[in-house]
Amino acid sequence: MPQGQPDVVPNDGLTTRQRRNRPLVMVHTGVGKGKSTAAFGMALRAWNQGWPVGVFQFVKSAKWKVGEENALKALGATGEGGTVDWHKMGEGWSWIQRDPKEGEQSHEDKGREGWEHIKRCLAEERYRFYVLDEFAYLLHWGWVDTEEVIRVLRDRPGQQHVVITGRNAPAELCEFADLVTDMSKVKHPMDAGQKGQRGIEW
Amino acid sequence: MPQGQPDVVPNDGLTTRQRRNRPLVMVHTGVGKGKSTAAFGMALRAWNQGWPVGVFQFVKSAKWKVGEENALKALGATGEGGTVDWHKMGEGWSWIQRDPKEGEQSHEDKGREGWEHIKRCLAEERYRFYVLDEFAYLLHWGWVDTEEVIRVLRDRPGQQHVVITGRNAPAELCEFADLVTDMSKVKHPMDAGQKGQRGIEW
Repeated sequence: MPQGQPDVVPNDGLTTRQRRNRPLVMVHTGVGKGKSTAAFGMALRAWNQGWPVGVFQFVKSAKWKVGEENALKALGATGEGGTVDWHKMGEGWSWIQRDPKEGEQSHEDKGREGWEHIKRCLAEERYRFYVLDEFAYLLHWGWVDTEEVIRVLRDRPGQQHVVITGRNAPAELCEFADLVTDMSKVKHPMDAGQKGQRGIEW
Repeated sequence: MPQGQPDVVPNDGLTTRQRRNRPLVMVHTGVGKGKSTAAFGMALRAWNQGWPVGVFQFVKSAKWKVGEENALKALGATGEGGTVDWHKMGEGWSWIQRDPKEGEQSHEDKGREGWEHIKRCLAEERYRFYVLDEFAYLLHWGWVDTEEVIRVLRDRPGQQHVVITGRNAPAELCEFADLVTDMSKVKHPMDAGQKGQRGIEW
């Protein structure tokens, strides 16, 4: 909730307008709730600007985030704002046209394939707002090289905002990112023995 | 991101189903980004369940959250999910039909009037999911009595989920709430002299 007055005016040779419109890399990490949820909330703003939104879900789940998925797809379909493409690793990346009889890819291969596709999207400026949901895990696990991700993000053309979610975001990524928020758990219903519920957890 | 297995099974006389469907009070606090954004992200899930959603914005702003507002209203208008009512203190609460010549209400009075209306909504189970955006400030400032809020929330009928956002949520409220997440700022573009930008901050 910035009040509009930065504390420091950097000596970077940019005008305020140039600096204002600088494309951002944002990281939502920590063990608390709200990392992905806040990223999808940001996507609402991007949609409202008419920006093409690309969501890449890197962790498979049967029911998680179906609410956000249905809502963002419904928004994309209204034609009143930006488009929304939703890619799920769990259901096979939509752009992979591969004979399933050839044998299933490993989870790790699928993750890397997702990242390769994101690189292509960034190179061709396919989206204006990217949600790389749970992508931090892949970096943490070493499936995708953090240094390469930073290099690709640093060199991306145009006005492409990228938000990366997930626990254990590597320190180098946080160092590179423009905005890092750590969601801490203070209290969660699971602590009191409650299971997740429809409409709240998914 | 609960994995489905609580650590503790409470001795509260409830079945798992009853416990699962327990209406929740959730608090998003802390100085970092994402408190409101995550609450609006949760509203996407509520919408997807077909639940009536009521948003009450307690802090006036010309441009903040217009993206979420437009998006959630557009979702409500699709008829594919729940309805969305959006009430802004800054524009006058929509249910207050008062001659403006009588003199403007104070900010504090408007805040209290908002809370009185929420009490009526809770009593008649008007919504299934409430976002009381920035409401924590009013409690912190003492405009609305925290003990009363806790009492009203504790006694609310039916299946009404409530999420309260804002910095400085009072300790008693956090003690009472089912879920508390603290959003901590690790790094923000404002620190590097960047102002807020369209599509990102609003």
